[in-house]
Amino acid sequence: MPEIPKKQMAMVIEKTGGPVQYKEIDVQQPGPDEVLINIKYSGVCHTDLHAVNGDWPLATKLPLVGGHEGAGIVVAKGDLCHDIEIGDHAGVKWINGTCLQCDFCQQSDEPLCAKALLSGYTVDGTFQQYCIAKAAHVARLHKDIPLDAVAPVLCAGITVYKGLKESGAKPGQTVAIVGAGGGLGSLAQQYAKAMGLRTIAIDSGEDKRKMCTEQLGSYAFIDFATSKNVVKDVQEATEDGLGPHAVILVAVNEKPFQQAAEYVRPRGTVICIGLPAGAYLRAPVFESVIKMVTIKGSYVGNRKDSSEALDFFRRGLINSPFKTIGLSELQKVYDLMHEGKIAGRYVVDTSK
Amino acid sequence: MPEIPKKQMAMVIEKTGGPVQYKEIDVQQPGPDEVLINIKYSGVCHTDLHAVNGDWPLATKLPLVGGHEGAGIVVAKGDLCHDIEIGDHAGVKWINGTCLQCDFCQQSDEPLCAKALLSGYTVDGTFQQYCIAKAAHVARLHKDIPLDAVAPVLCAGITVYKGLKESGAKPGQTVAIVGAGGGLGSLAQQYAKAMGLRTIAIDSGEDKRKMCTEQLGSYAFIDFATSKNVVKDVQEATEDGLGPHAVILVAVNEKPFQQAAEYVRPRGTVICIGLPAGAYLRAPVFESVIKMVTIKGSYVGNRKDSSEALDFFRRGLINSPFKTIGLSELQKVYDLMHEGKIAGRYVVDTSK
Amino acid sequence: MPEIPKKQMAMVIEKTGGPVQYKEIDVQQPGPDEVLINIKYSGVCHTDLHAVNGDWPLATKLPLVGGHEGAGIVVAKGDLCHDIEIGDHAGVKWINGTCLQCDFCQQSDEPLCAKALLSGYTVDGTFQQYCIAKAAHVARLHKDIPLDAVAPVLCAGITVYKGLKESGAKPGQTVAIVGAGGGLGSLAQQYAKAMGLRTIAIDSGEDKRKMCTEQLGSYAFIDFATSKNVVKDVQEATEDGLGPHAVILVAVNEKPFQQAAEYVRPRGTVICIGLPAGAYLRAPVFESVIKMVTIKGSYVGNRKDSSEALDFFRRGLINSPFKTIGLSELQKVYDLMHEGKIAGRYVVDTSK
Amino acid sequence: MPEIPKKQMAMVIEKTGGPVQYKEIDVQQPGPDEVLINIKYSGVCHTDLHAVNGDWPLATKLPLVGGHEGAGIVVAKGDLCHDIEIGDHAGVKWINGTCLQCDFCQQSDEPLCAKALLSGYTVDGTFQQYCIAKAAHVARLHKDIPLDAVAPVLCAGITVYKGLKESGAKPGQTVAIVGAGGGLGSLAQQYAKAMGLRTIAIDSGEDKRKMCTEQLGSYAFIDFATSKNVVKDVQEATEDGLGPHAVILVAVNEKPFQQAAEYVRPRGTVICIGLPAGAYLRAPVFESVIKMVTIKGSYVGNRKDSSEALDFFRRGLINSPFKTIGLSELQKVYDLMHEGKIAGRYVVDTSK
Repeated sequence: MPEIPKKQMAMVIEKTGGPVQYKEIDVQQPGPDEVLINIKYSGVCHTDLHAVNGDWPLATKLPLVGGHEGAGIVVAKGDLCHDIEIGDHAGVKWINGTCLQCDFCQQSDEPLCAKALLSGYTVDGTFQQYCIAKAAHVARLHKDIPLDAVAPVLCAGITVYKGLKESGAKPGQTVAIVGAGGGLGSLAQQYAKAMGLRTIAIDSGEDKRKMCTEQLGSYAFIDFATSKNVVKDVQEATEDGLGPHAVILVAVNEKPFQQAAEYVRPRGTVICIGLPAGAYLRAPVFESVIKMVTIKGSYVGNRKDSSEALDFFRRGLINSPFKTIGLSELQKVYDLMHEGKIAGRYVVDTSK
Repeated sequence: MPEIPKKQMAMVIEKTGGPVQYKEIDVQQPGPDEVLINIKYSGVCHTDLHAVNGDWPLATKLPLVGGHEGAGIVVAKGDLCHDIEIGDHAGVKWINGTCLQCDFCQQSDEPLCAKALLSGYTVDGTFQQYCIAKAAHVARLHKDIPLDAVAPVLCAGITVYKGLKESGAKPGQTVAIVGAGGGLGSLAQQYAKAMGLRTIAIDSGEDKRKMCTEQLGSYAFIDFATSKNVVKDVQEATEDGLGPHAVILVAVNEKPFQQAAEYVRPRGTVICIGLPAGAYLRAPVFESVIKMVTIKGSYVGNRKDSSEALDFFRRGLINSPFKTIGLSELQKVYDLMHEGKIAGRYVVDTSK
Repeated sequence: MPEIPKKQMAMVIEKTGGPVQYKEIDVQQPGPDEVLINIKYSGVCHTDLHAVNGDWPLATKLPLVGGHEGAGIVVAKGDLCHDIEIGDHAGVKWINGTCLQCDFCQQSDEPLCAKALLSGYTVDGTFQQYCIAKAAHVARLHKDIPLDAVAPVLCAGITVYKGLKESGAKPGQTVAIVGAGGGLGSLAQQYAKAMGLRTIAIDSGEDKRKMCTEQLGSYAFIDFATSKNVVKDVQEATEDGLGPHAVILVAVNEKPFQQAAEYVRPRGTVICIGLPAGAYLRAPVFESVIKMVTIKGSYVGNRKDSSEALDFFRRGLINSPFKTIGLSELQKVYDLMHEGKIAGRYVVDTSK
Repeated sequence: MPEIPKKQMAMVIEKTGGPVQYKEIDVQQPGPDEVLINIKYSGVCHTDLHAVNGDWPLATKLPLVGGHEGAGIVVAKGDLCHDIEIGDHAGVKWINGTCLQCDFCQQSDEPLCAKALLSGYTVDGTFQQYCIAKAAHVARLHKDIPLDAVAPVLCAGITVYKGLKESGAKPGQTVAIVGAGGGLGSLAQQYAKAMGLRTIAIDSGEDKRKMCTEQLGSYAFIDFATSKNVVKDVQEATEDGLGPHAVILVAVNEKPFQQAAEYVRPRGTVICIGLPAGAYLRAPVFESVIKMVTIKGSYVGNRKDSSEALDFFRRGLINSPFKTIGLSELQKVYDLMHEGKIAGRYVVDTSK
């Protein structure tokens, strides 16, 4: 049995707007259906910054420990936890727990549960050394998975994998990834390839072109900044000129949300994942009906999606570059995010 | 062998904008893969008025014989037509013929074929006594189906049935029909009931409330003109307050297209069928993603949808009220349409 | 708060082979994720007889209180039960509880969970006045549902509804029900009708013909005892002579399992539900491949199937005839079963 | 315009049982919906031997030119063929033509059409220099596809690809291939890999083990000849010991058809493709129901499956080893087949 301290270090937000403070707080005890996880590493996501800033329509818990991409080791568990053992490696995700009984939970749509607990948002998250989560919801991690590298997969990886599943695109078909050069986009291309899909990367700049086509497996790159006609260029990048079978939108501005319905193939699907603030989907009724286009929102993955996404990662098919920094330095990451200077994903080491 | 005259009466448009003229024209001869159908009755659809007015982005043939809801009897056929006999009853639909070879035809999406011939639009239609259509595409009509009553089903009926199928709603689930009191809406409620679905009718006025709930089987009616909060009222009309599993939009104004995404159930589907001129779909990205909403355009049915929709009609489960008028009086119907005074569907008798 | 006695009456099996004894036993207390239900009525199923006789490959708990179709009122609940209240009406089903965490539970296939607790088989069931079940698994019953009439629906109704869903048959298509005159078959025809399906009843005898075609909505009846060629007769009972789109096998002998693959429509599905002892599915490889036939086993419904099936019942679309008898007289029901003399379903009243 | 000779060389069977004779016959002229293809190469399939021997329940045309895996160049076409040009490369498949109008053709199940024309069986096939086929059914071949290498893909490749699609297995899941070392099995492993699936190869012998695991991408190999318990070994080769999500049966003996239902994962699918003479599917009802197993026959692919399968080949993901021999030497191939001495696929060159 591992020894569990009474106190631990955590990054805490006392009031909306911040700041985040590195301080000592109590270690909690798990309830009967919960586990206590010694978080080793946690990814940092834009959502964490939204939680600090309070600029989303949903209120956070306060004081709050943020973070929802945490990987670590189970150190305690409640009496009802029969399917996980102390010493197991596990991941804490955005969905910390759900009721497992409502209509949505019954149909494996746990992320739609009205009682979902959200890590680092409505319950304390992974920017601490010891984090509580519902046993039924923590991701099981094989011991050959490195706990630092897997952290960003626990949110970003699962999310894009889910979006690709929701698109209905089948092996051999073509998917356009809008925002291909960013963190989500890079993962999306790799998951698509592992799923037998072909990808067209849409983003801007020569660096991103090179990365997408040479490292991430896209067979075409459309630079939206230099293209004279994005719709035409995307369609012409497909074999028969009719456009991609699906489009995955991970961009964080509004325009691509309105262009995708134009270049997607008739009967094709546009999947919205990115959440540009205040943005609207917009598509002409006439053309959307005549082409039988589908536009679909895709939120985070359920537990099954999560375990599948992690299995692709474990098999070495997904590579998500990251930088490690001490938990105490989290504010630096937020500053970089704020300035739009993040390249790749940051992972915090909770021991520092 | 029926005797086929050389000349026939038809309603012809010589130039865009009209007028339509009742005049004698030649009877055409079918090609090897075509049949000649002695049209007995033809429904009149708003699309026919668009063809006269030329106010859609797609150009019509000129001179043009309009009409795409024609029911009649096969009187001649080409050498390659092995699966239909002279004397068979048959229907001519919007899709007059397609290539049957392209990617879309191969996946049973004939309406998306780039080479689709459109009855009464890109080829002559059913406002004549003898109409040509591709044998592979004419609807087969059992002889116990009345040729006048079935005419409107050949377009409106098939279209709403297709929309209900595309919605993915399953027996026992709830579908909201927006524009429930109109021609398409009335058919939609009846098809929904025959498919084991429950319906909420959305429209305005006491007459429509009565018709929808007492005759057409809807268990609830929301009057959008008197409701203080349509979104709330629709959701409260469902058992658990979470909203209908699907929404079928057959209205011809834009607002309902933008409300539906708000009241549909999480994981629900909004089907767009109606084509309000210049209208846009519009939905907030954040809520659409978080609720995993699907918005989908549904065009006309394929051949299989058509034969299924006709089978429901034949079994007596669909009742579409109509008035009959002589073909020569077609302009009167257009006038009523223009004034928005049509109640139910008009069917023209080609013998008059 | 209802008063809960310490002692109660129950029917108990001390050893495999029986007898069942009516005796006083302790009332149990629910664990943190469990509820205690005051069972008012319980249906009696053939499976209960198998539990007594121990003639299935799976061992029962001993001593055992049987029964898995129990309807009653929640009288106590554990601390983790937030989604059910004391006083709620609830049903105990064959699946008493599952882990809610394994691969199958994650994909809504709880009945396939390797840790599933089986009511009246591996845990004590509903032939007692106070029964324990996992809160996440008990069926929620609206208070307008009669507790006696719903009892048989909790197993038989859900099971046939699940089978119909698994068949993939769509509204308007035709399903053959083999064993249509029995308890499961009667329910299957009613659920099929409510789902917009058309049914061909297969069974024997004039009484059953009459019941199936006049009361249960089948449009055709094939008497397997008098038919000279069941395969041909079933196919000819379909519009185009190609056979039904699906076949639901609820018979308890082996032969129909081997005939169904012959008369089902190409691309059709044969669903096996009935469990004739020691029986084998058997189908010729050549014809099954050429016709692309699917043969599929369907076990009990999951929680979502259950709530859907109960909703159809609540809406008055399902009528399952039953006789009521005191719990103390359960052996009489087993005797009738043993002699094959049961018509309709028996429901025991736990107060007698 | 290419010059088309009046006479050509072909391999002809005058009567059932053979022999096949190399002789001069007339070149046919295409009908209005047909093309004439100058066959360059044709694969040889076991089915061709069945056509000679007449040992299948379906009678052949006589005299007969066999062959149904032919690749060549379009040299003439009928007046109705608008979607293919003289000079195009094209493939003739087992399905030479269908009605394109029946219920099955309407739902893209052309292989189930009751009027399907079968190349080299009910109409003359590809063992001649100039072969007729329906334009709507010939496979379109990009000009960068080698006509010899693609020949076996036109039947064997499409068939296994179809089976994998029918299995419903999704990227990341595991499929067992029974008969993995044979021609169909080798292709199945390659298609599975291209589709993001993981494969367990089942066959016997060290050579096949090596080929399957080192060249064809399977991560495990079970030798049915040396395994003490095939069911246990297959299940243990999967991550969680619960068995593969799907099984593809391309073996030509009966036993594997009966074992697969035992080791497939609960909710898994067994796909039957191989056609061992007189064989039966057989599975215990109890276990099949409790595990919710699906057993499904899969015939040849439709036109869409065909074009997808060819696209994987064109992209270099499928490698099907073959030997070339003159058409005049076809009997030698049959002799080798008869002796069971074929390794890889034979392709005949029609110019020799």
